Amino acid sequence: LATAIAAHLATLRPLHTHVSNHILAKEFAYCKYSKFRVGAALLSAGGEIIKGANVENASYGGTICAERTAIVKAVSEGTRAFIGLAVVTDVSSPISPCGMCRQVLREFCTLDMPIYMVPGDYDERVAQGILDGGVQETSLRELLPYSFGPEDLELPRK
Amino acid sequence: LATAIAAHLATLRPLHTHVSNHILAKEFAYCKYSKFRVGAALLSAGGEIIKGANVENASYGGTICAERTAIVKAVSEGTRAFIGLAVVTDVSSPISPCGMCRQVLREFCTLDMPIYMVPGDYDERVAQGILDGGVQETSLRELLPYSFGPEDLELPRK
Amino acid sequence: LATAIAAHLATLRPLHTHVSNHILAKEFAYCKYSKFRVGAALLSAGGEIIKGANVENASYGGTICAERTAIVKAVSEGTRAFIGLAVVTDVSSPISPCGMCRQVLREFCTLDMPIYMVPGDYDERVAQGILDGGVQETSLRELLPYSFGPEDLELPRK
Amino acid sequence: LATAIAAHLATLRPLHTHVSNHILAKEFAYCKYSKFRVGAALLSAGGEIIKGANVENASYGGTICAERTAIVKAVSEGTRAFIGLAVVTDVSSPISPCGMCRQVLREFCTLDMPIYMVPGDYDERVAQGILDGGVQETSLRELLPYSFGPEDLELPRK
Ligand SMILES: [Zn+2]
Ligand SMILES: [Zn+2]
Ligand SMILES: [Zn+2]
Ligand SMILES: [Zn+2]
Repeated sequence: LATAIAAHLATLRPLHTHVSNHILAKEFAYCKYSKFRVGAALLSAGGEIIKGANVENASYGGTICAERTAIVKAVSEGTRAFIGLAVVTDVSSPISPCGMCRQVLREFCTLDMPIYMVPGDYDERVAQGILDGGVQETSLRELLPYSFGPEDLELPRK
Repeated sequence: LATAIAAHLATLRPLHTHVSNHILAKEFAYCKYSKFRVGAALLSAGGEIIKGANVENASYGGTICAERTAIVKAVSEGTRAFIGLAVVTDVSSPISPCGMCRQVLREFCTLDMPIYMVPGDYDERVAQGILDGGVQETSLRELLPYSFGPEDLELPRK
Repeated sequence: LATAIAAHLATLRPLHTHVSNHILAKEFAYCKYSKFRVGAALLSAGGEIIKGANVENASYGGTICAERTAIVKAVSEGTRAFIGLAVVTDVSSPISPCGMCRQVLREFCTLDMPIYMVPGDYDERVAQGILDGGVQETSLRELLPYSFGPEDLELPRK
Repeated sequence: LATAIAAHLATLRPLHTHVSNHILAKEFAYCKYSKFRVGAALLSAGGEIIKGANVENASYGGTICAERTAIVKAVSEGTRAFIGLAVVTDVSSPISPCGMCRQVLREFCTLDMPIYMVPGDYDERVAQGILDGGVQETSLRELLPYSFGPEDLELPRK
């Protein structure tokens, strides 16, 4: 498995580079309330990296996560096709996108697009010889089964 | 499977009654924009049925789905423990909660709480002798794997 | 002014009763993250009081405020006409609805419906002889000028 | 007034340029459901233009407006100080930010930062000799009075 993930990461070279650079935009997280920094990096079909960070609000419901930031950023610049996503936080276990972000990703990403959950201590792990740095791979197919998408709104109503 | 679901539905008698009554609050859906009515019924640990419907907004992001309506309704009345959820729409296939609702359910429901996706033509199916009316059972464990919850915010940051 | 507000509150007797009872549902606030309890009470055209409290989420963006809780609760039970709203928190200054709630209220309330911002120490103020308990009255006309509403979506596009 | 606005627009030259170029990113709006394209352009304190467009979702509540897209885009790249915002749609009257966007803007913008509501037919108006192209100027002070902001969360609870 580790080898498969490493291979995947190697394929997604630009994403990998970002991961290993530890940045993934989480440095710009505005997380005044949760103190929980999150960074996300989308890889577009055209090979571009689009980075996002969480942006919180005093009215908590106004908060927009890193993954959604990355998506709207890309879309608002004309990019709607993606081939990978990586998410990283400051905690040492891999953290996955919240349900809201899974829903927003669903609108633009294929169910099988790889989603990499990168542990906060990825670099240390790599330095210790852990080949994949503890990255876990998943997908929308796994994270959002029976998903509700654009085509559902077109179903005939009784 | 059908038998198991029917048995479950029988156990959750009050929920079942609502399902078979076709109401599940979707009659009160305010879906001016999507024309997609959704109703939800939570069953509390105390045996109460709490109904929700989708409430849309001209600024689409202000929309609150049926499942979230049901949850905040219950919580704002002091109910935080639930043993079942049913969701129904007007389309004939079972429709599952969107990612945003899965995330909000995650805060209060156990991963194994049964979630029933009820087809819009449940009644017709039952009338045709389909025992379970086409209801599909799932759970947050299945719908929101690797979920992000309250305990994650308490993890130590690097 | 104080007299005018007191008169208004007197007119809205059921709302007033709730305000003076200090409850306004904030007792059921689920505010694990912000520790900021908010309660809201809508008065329907039919004279019913519908109470809401804030319901937060580990993914902060999933949070639904007290005012929105009250609205979706009412709408999901078939009530769409309102004649007053009161909001109370635990802080001693009157706190107004956040922008998200103003937007959701906009869908169902008239611009001139009175919105009462009730200070957290309303009872003490009343006990001290402050007639209106420090309540401040406002409206959507004041809180959300140039508002975006249902009719805007029907404007012809160029 | 028209002169004042024109002067302002002239001061905010880069913003103006974008306005007169009619783009404001609305060309990249993803508004599959509302068919209501919105574009926004933030002007940062550093003189940068950050463009946003609305990005809708099949689960309507997952929609993120143009203004919020622009804000999270800027913040996720390290920009948190802004001196102007322009919003444009395809309808011929000036349209203002929805309540949710006002709330998110509140976190980063001063109450007096100019907000320009640009009519969809701005260019035609300018061509007809209307100096300000029908642009209306406002601010958060006007759009979000009694606003709820970061400092409110720090108030002592009773
Ligand atoms: Zn998220
Ligand atoms: Zn939903
Ligand atoms: Zn609010
Ligand atoms: Zn908006």
